[in-house]
Amino acid sequence: MRLIEQRLLPHRFQIVAMPDFRATARAITQMVVRGAGAIGATAAYGLAQGARAFRGENPARFSAHLKTVYQTLQAARPTAVDPVNAMDAVLRAMRAGTTVAEQQALALAAAEEFANDDVRHCAAIGQHGKKLIRPGANILTHCNAGWLAFVDIGSATAPLYAAQKAGKKFHVFCDETRPRCQGATLTAWELAGQKISHQIIADNAAGHLMQRGEIDLVIVGADRVLGRTGEVANKIGTYTKAVLACRHHVPFYVAIPLSTLDWKLRSGRAIPIEERDEAEVLGAWGVEHGRKEPIYVRIANPSSGARNPGFDVTPPELITGIITPEGIFPPGALWKNRRLLDYAG
Amino acid sequence: MRLIEQRLLPHRFQIVAMPDFRATARAITQMVVRGAGAIGATAAYGLAQGARAFRGENPARFSAHLKTVYQTLQAARPTAVDPVNAMDAVLRAMRAGTTVAEQQALALAAAEEFANDDVRHCAAIGQHGKKLIRPGANILTHCNAGWLAFVDIGSATAPLYAAQKAGKKFHVFCDETRPRCQGATLTAWELAGQKISHQIIADNAAGHLMQRGEIDLVIVGADRVLGRTGEVANKIGTYTKAVLACRHHVPFYVAIPLSTLDWKLRSGRAIPIEERDEAEVLGAWGVEHGRKEPIYVRIANPSSGARNPGFDVTPPELITGIITPEGIFPPGALWKNRRLLDYAG
Repeated sequence: MRLIEQRLLPHRFQIVAMPDFRATARAITQMVVRGAGAIGATAAYGLAQGARAFRGENPARFSAHLKTVYQTLQAARPTAVDPVNAMDAVLRAMRAGTTVAEQQALALAAAEEFANDDVRHCAAIGQHGKKLIRPGANILTHCNAGWLAFVDIGSATAPLYAAQKAGKKFHVFCDETRPRCQGATLTAWELAGQKISHQIIADNAAGHLMQRGEIDLVIVGADRVLGRTGEVANKIGTYTKAVLACRHHVPFYVAIPLSTLDWKLRSGRAIPIEERDEAEVLGAWGVEHGRKEPIYVRIANPSSGARNPGFDVTPPELITGIITPEGIFPPGALWKNRRLLDYAG
Repeated sequence: MRLIEQRLLPHRFQIVAMPDFRATARAITQMVVRGAGAIGATAAYGLAQGARAFRGENPARFSAHLKTVYQTLQAARPTAVDPVNAMDAVLRAMRAGTTVAEQQALALAAAEEFANDDVRHCAAIGQHGKKLIRPGANILTHCNAGWLAFVDIGSATAPLYAAQKAGKKFHVFCDETRPRCQGATLTAWELAGQKISHQIIADNAAGHLMQRGEIDLVIVGADRVLGRTGEVANKIGTYTKAVLACRHHVPFYVAIPLSTLDWKLRSGRAIPIEERDEAEVLGAWGVEHGRKEPIYVRIANPSSGARNPGFDVTPPELITGIITPEGIFPPGALWKNRRLLDYAG
């Protein structure tokens, strides 16, 4: 298992190896890898990695081992549903095998299939979403739902890349997305690489820009979308941007592959919101002038602590549409679409 | 002229001397000193400093010199009105003198009077505002409107300090307030020093906390409040918090001394919004582990730029009340109060 060490980006591009499934789970928790589709694929491969590390032929012990692997990977990012959907797909595929060896081989193939599906989903999101982007539009995005967050061109960024390919010109405001600053580091790095016009803004600035009519469209990704209700869990601050967009009549879209749909939970209140290490809020990672490696600096008053909820939940009434590989739907109408429901298995 | 070098706080407490009025103006622009009352007093003393540096007896040349001093200090923070009101008060007081020497002496006395007024205003804000704080309340504040921002106990913090003195227990969430992080550095430092229970949050987190019912009250300061309309210019991100508070029926108060009232402007659209250096958004100031001096680190992708509006304007319909030294008023009713109007001169 090899992953891009995203915490070093944009300052350094490095591939790191995960020796076992526990290291893979830690990589998710510590945000070596993050993003809905990317941690879905990582969990799928992590489950295959764990399955293939099992030595022996005893089905009961293999099953118990798989349960440990599954739970370890699921607990690594409790707010997200992609890892659950990805691992469930792997487990379903493994049922076709009878021996441990057969199931181990099927696990790897199923992980590969999940990753390939994610590529196709992102491409389809791009085709549907690009229609929303008018020439000259100013688009706000939050956090990173780009190719680093998926196996290929991303969810929230897919419409941007597709619109660019179609020759459209537009401008993107990237929320820096404190505390981890995935917007300032990852999304800005992606857009710069793609030569898409963009500027980073403080998370505080979007309201002012909307007031002045400088934002025409918001597109974000998601960590979990409830199929039954249309509620969207995503990076902390997403809800705030949706509230602002609603007030200013700016269309607010959420782009997701099918693996981000959760058909089980009945209420957004039931989505576990990860409370993360306060050090993320109390400081920041950056590069000092003349140096190359990012370092952590303490910003805050040394004797003060922090609260650090990592995600929030946006209600459907604030969301204009959910951009899926099957088309764009109002959040309250997801459950009416058979092809979305079919994915739930 | 001596100022606290606020950019080094909370890591180091240092007093710096300003040799002339131009250095004083630069100190405002570069945020050595910031905060409505504090830059009001700084501008008043800066005008006195500039006036007293004049050599000669020619009234016309003295007047031209004063104009330069006034404009230099006003341009240092165009969004704020306290420097204008403070300098206008100094100029009014100087009219009682006939010779240059007399006027120079009157300027210093008037600056002193402005500073003393600010102390009284902050104390009165505390007495009115403490009634809003119920025992056990969770209070959100944005940026720093504490004693560092004024001559004494602050505007937004005055009700907190008064409530604490009255024996009330409560908890404060400090928005870190990117890009300059005055909440994480200055407000948290003040509250820690006062032993008031508090936690720093990312600017992104307040919406989530309000959704969960964890914020009962918002109190912020202001850089300029339009007496005619009740519109409030304050640190970027204030508007966003007001929009969230309105949605969640959380009372939203703005605390100001009289010098923050602007009776001239007829619309918030006319308030100049300072666009600040993009380096503020692209990085952060903090202390590396094991070191003592804060350093600047670049957070963002090296090839990306930023937009950095420093302030925003909150409309009166989102504001529950303006806490003034004369009492608490609905933002639309400021102009009905004779004692507020009298201050306009």
